[in-house]
Amino acid sequence: MAVNAAERTAMSRALELAARGPRGANPQVGAVILSSTGDVLAEGWHRGAGTPHAEVDALSKLAPGAAHGATAVVTLEPCNHTGRTGPCAVALIEAGVARVVYALDDPGAVSGGGAERLRAAGVEVESGEQADAAGALIEGWLTAQRLGRPHVTVKWAQSLDGRAAAADGSSQWITGPVARADVHRRRAEADAIAVGTGTVLADDPALTARDGDTLLPHQPVPVVIGTRSTPEDAAVHRHPHPPLFFDTHDLAAVMADLHGRGIQRLFVEGGPTLASAFLAAGLADQVLAYIAPVLLGGERLALTDIGVPSIAAARRLTVDGWVPLGDDLLVVARPAEENESHNEGAA
Amino acid sequence: MAVNAAERTAMSRALELAARGPRGANPQVGAVILSSTGDVLAEGWHRGAGTPHAEVDALSKLAPGAAHGATAVVTLEPCNHTGRTGPCAVALIEAGVARVVYALDDPGAVSGGGAERLRAAGVEVESGEQADAAGALIEGWLTAQRLGRPHVTVKWAQSLDGRAAAADGSSQWITGPVARADVHRRRAEADAIAVGTGTVLADDPALTARDGDTLLPHQPVPVVIGTRSTPEDAAVHRHPHPPLFFDTHDLAAVMADLHGRGIQRLFVEGGPTLASAFLAAGLADQVLAYIAPVLLGGERLALTDIGVPSIAAARRLTVDGWVPLGDDLLVVARPAEENESHNEGAA
Repeated sequence: MAVNAAERTAMSRALELAARGPRGANPQVGAVILSSTGDVLAEGWHRGAGTPHAEVDALSKLAPGAAHGATAVVTLEPCNHTGRTGPCAVALIEAGVARVVYALDDPGAVSGGGAERLRAAGVEVESGEQADAAGALIEGWLTAQRLGRPHVTVKWAQSLDGRAAAADGSSQWITGPVARADVHRRRAEADAIAVGTGTVLADDPALTARDGDTLLPHQPVPVVIGTRSTPEDAAVHRHPHPPLFFDTHDLAAVMADLHGRGIQRLFVEGGPTLASAFLAAGLADQVLAYIAPVLLGGERLALTDIGVPSIAAARRLTVDGWVPLGDDLLVVARPAEENESHNEGAA
Repeated sequence: MAVNAAERTAMSRALELAARGPRGANPQVGAVILSSTGDVLAEGWHRGAGTPHAEVDALSKLAPGAAHGATAVVTLEPCNHTGRTGPCAVALIEAGVARVVYALDDPGAVSGGGAERLRAAGVEVESGEQADAAGALIEGWLTAQRLGRPHVTVKWAQSLDGRAAAADGSSQWITGPVARADVHRRRAEADAIAVGTGTVLADDPALTARDGDTLLPHQPVPVVIGTRSTPEDAAVHRHPHPPLFFDTHDLAAVMADLHGRGIQRLFVEGGPTLASAFLAAGLADQVLAYIAPVLLGGERLALTDIGVPSIAAARRLTVDGWVPLGDDLLVVARPAEENESHNEGAA
């Protein structure tokens, strides 16, 4: 049995409701309960970890028995596990819901299986309605689920010859205003922005996303990684979000913590030690290299050691774009898949 | 008095004749002697340093007195100095030539002034006829005259992060076949190709310009610079041209020697020490950086020290092209003029 017009309209509404929830450790989900004649009985959405799931939120607005024979339209497959709340599949069954229409399958190993449980209880289940829109809404969450950690972008600026600074440490500005504005725009798309303690001590960055002197609406949470201490008067303390300090070199532990906090997209801004550590650990999903048309020479490299002993072990990248930005060039790349072409050939 | 049709035709012919001569320390020049009625009396061209200039070559084919009242059509201003041959201006005056049409002014401080000398002797002089074509023919020579040395292209291949090789020294191949073919094509456009002795010892390069395994028609003269000795069985000894060895670090001396040999275009292929020495000395007129989408990290840098103490002293480049070549990117650049924009701005 296909999805009917009332259900289709309800799914669009459920997606709007879902978007009201916060981006975080849990996915944004919306739900609409329809009567058997297609009238809207109740609406709900998820407001973040520890609060009711969207289906339960919607059911809670109905009198006992009012959902009997109803249809639940949900943007994500109802869950099948007991966390801080009970399984939604069970709540729907107990409410007497006769039919469930959902957009996306739940990719979680623990939370998945809700559709099967519903069917086993005699509930009609349809999936895939407006799945693309539902996927786009929670893309960051889906990626973090797949990776088991935040998606990581490692960004650096360098001279053409790979230096981050001149011999005396001076580096402002290697790249131009167009490139710097691009960085700020991308910072604003991230949930968190990470630097090493060395960069905090050397550059005292604000770690805000700005348009000129104006703060952009969304600010990433500042994350400082490393064992040196951050001065009390460091600019990062004046960030709109309280900074997270990780007194460790264990990036896996940092990622696990951030994942638990619902950080889906992490923007690693350096310096060279931190960027190289992420690359060496295979924790870079995207690379952004801003290249200025300038030569510096010397010892202050944008990347240090990334654990490549020989050319066969080179970290090959797939370039998604060589993007001129003013006088500079942005290289947007990601790790090449093992079976992609490796630039081989006779010479 | 303007240039007439017969003279215009004669200039085209003189340019063809000029192109028969060799590219070298002297410019390629052609000459045609016309009778007062526009008939071709004689043709000549310059065959290289130590041989007669084009005008003298043409006059030598005429009986004494035959050029009296004639017009000489020459691709370059007749010279006014005594080198291994006498001044052409004087030879034309003594032959009784009544009119001289030439294309390009002689830029030489020593050899110039021929037109003035001719006019002083009562010879009619017209200049500028087909000057663009004449300039294109001897562009390399004009550039070398202006610089007082060969035009220098410094080329290197690097990983995105500025490395020439992995930690163990392996580097074949950082860049792909399309980029390598581009290098060979550009080698063939140079008069000479320079490497340091370190590169000879490490890589044993052939320094030929090839299309696959086939030698291209024009081969640059191999130049080896440095104080270490080249093994007797080194590949460079099998180059079509005998190599030039410079047992020195004095690049100015090397350039003077090459200039004297008529080398107009030098292609510096490395390695890192030699490329950096040319850049540090301000002897790079063009930079070609082939960037592979790969990260290597480590100590083996494509450039070493180029004498930049602070960001204010950075060697700013003007990029003439970011050129994708297969998976790689070629950056074609040249030193920025002092008054060009330096990428400044608030951030």
